[in-house]
Amino acid sequence: MTYCVATQVNDGLVFASDTRTSAGVDDIRTYSKMHVLEFPGERSLVILSAGNLATTHAILAQTRRDLENPEAPVSLRTARGMYDAAEYLGDVSTHAQKDTAVQGQYGGVDLRVTLILGGQIRGEAPARYLIYPEGNCIWCSPETPYLQLGESKYGKPILDRIIRPEISLEDAARCALVSLDSTIKSNLSVGPPLDLAILRRDTFSLAQKIRLEQDVGYYAKLREAWGRKIADALRSLPKFDWESPAQ
Amino acid sequence: MTYCVATQVNDGLVFASDTRTSAGVDDIRTYSKMHVLEFPGERSLVILSAGNLATTHAILAQTRRDLENPEAPVSLRTARGMYDAAEYLGDVSTHAQKDTAVQGQYGGVDLRVTLILGGQIRGEAPARYLIYPEGNCIWCSPETPYLQLGESKYGKPILDRIIRPEISLEDAARCALVSLDSTIKSNLSVGPPLDLAILRRDTFSLAQKIRLEQDVGYYAKLREAWGRKIADALRSLPKFDWESPAQ
Repeated sequence: MTYCVATQVNDGLVFASDTRTSAGVDDIRTYSKMHVLEFPGERSLVILSAGNLATTHAILAQTRRDLENPEAPVSLRTARGMYDAAEYLGDVSTHAQKDTAVQGQYGGVDLRVTLILGGQIRGEAPARYLIYPEGNCIWCSPETPYLQLGESKYGKPILDRIIRPEISLEDAARCALVSLDSTIKSNLSVGPPLDLAILRRDTFSLAQKIRLEQDVGYYAKLREAWGRKIADALRSLPKFDWESPAQ
Repeated sequence: MTYCVATQVNDGLVFASDTRTSAGVDDIRTYSKMHVLEFPGERSLVILSAGNLATTHAILAQTRRDLENPEAPVSLRTARGMYDAAEYLGDVSTHAQKDTAVQGQYGGVDLRVTLILGGQIRGEAPARYLIYPEGNCIWCSPETPYLQLGESKYGKPILDRIIRPEISLEDAARCALVSLDSTIKSNLSVGPPLDLAILRRDTFSLAQKIRLEQDVGYYAKLREAWGRKIADALRSLPKFDWESPAQ
């Protein structure tokens, strides 16, 4: 399984993802689910992926082939806008799934992939698209400030409580990391390390792209602080009326 | 859908449940999913239910019939211990499902019900059992300090972070309410008002059984306080190394 989140605030976009892939609990591996494509000053795109890993890799390989092929009718470099880029990715995804299904001698494997495409292309505002396994996609209005992939329920309450257009990119990033950490604490199929990327509006180049390991550095500090603050918050909630004030 | 939680700490048991039932989004109703049976000083039992509402009511009706029938081979009053009571409830549940399935002229309706039975019978420690639709059940060791029914993912992280054997019943109750409130905020199929019950160890009678409405009284205070404390906690998390100290 997987958990990815893409958040949009006034100042830009934040992307975060786990790295655990599994073909059953006895076959756990680590793969990045965050794929960055930048043409600095012109366009900066981030793809988050959930679903079949081989289909994901087929999609990434085809997008690279198209980037290198001057005769490709469209690529992530030449797509005129974000919607065209999302449509292109949807096409690549459905082709990858169909090719494997046709070649495959064994049924029953779920070949589907769901993608988030986020970023900014010069001349447009920052945007996020959710690309379904069927290849179609939806864009996100301000009423949908975050998109999730995969094991989305554990980490949704904190996003619902915190994400507002006016918060800073860094607070949005901390919220995404808490959302991921809560999911990791409660579900074995989502695991560290985490990938985090921040794209400031109108810069066309990622401000940050970092990997966070669970027990060291910033992620360790964040986990310790959040666990302590949540326990403090719970202990300081209003008392029931039957509790004596001294309790 | 439904969300119920039953937590065990050293001091006793806490039960909390929502009240939303739905046969589709256009048929929303309010029903309690918490059913209390007490013989003060002797035994105090709480049943939480998730699944088909008619099956649930058939189960409750049969348990009442058996309570009133001195010739019933077993009832929730006469069951020798908690495991016997759980087995009895499992039997009643499977019979209710089978009876309806036999009588039913239409297929495709999910008749299953999952139950939590918690409480204490004199001579035993407090205990919780999860009773599956198949009628079998599991008890819970100290390593399983809470049981959930229904939409369990949204509210799981806060339980994982807070519930420890040594916390007070009231803190466990506040944690259960926060767990429910987070679920309600993020999922339309779980809704207020909430039911809350607290059973202190070795008292054989509920210490509290209250209903909490969303926008008034204690639940309103709790929601406001938790929302504010979570926002404060997030804002005071460690800064990334690229943020200036003044930010």
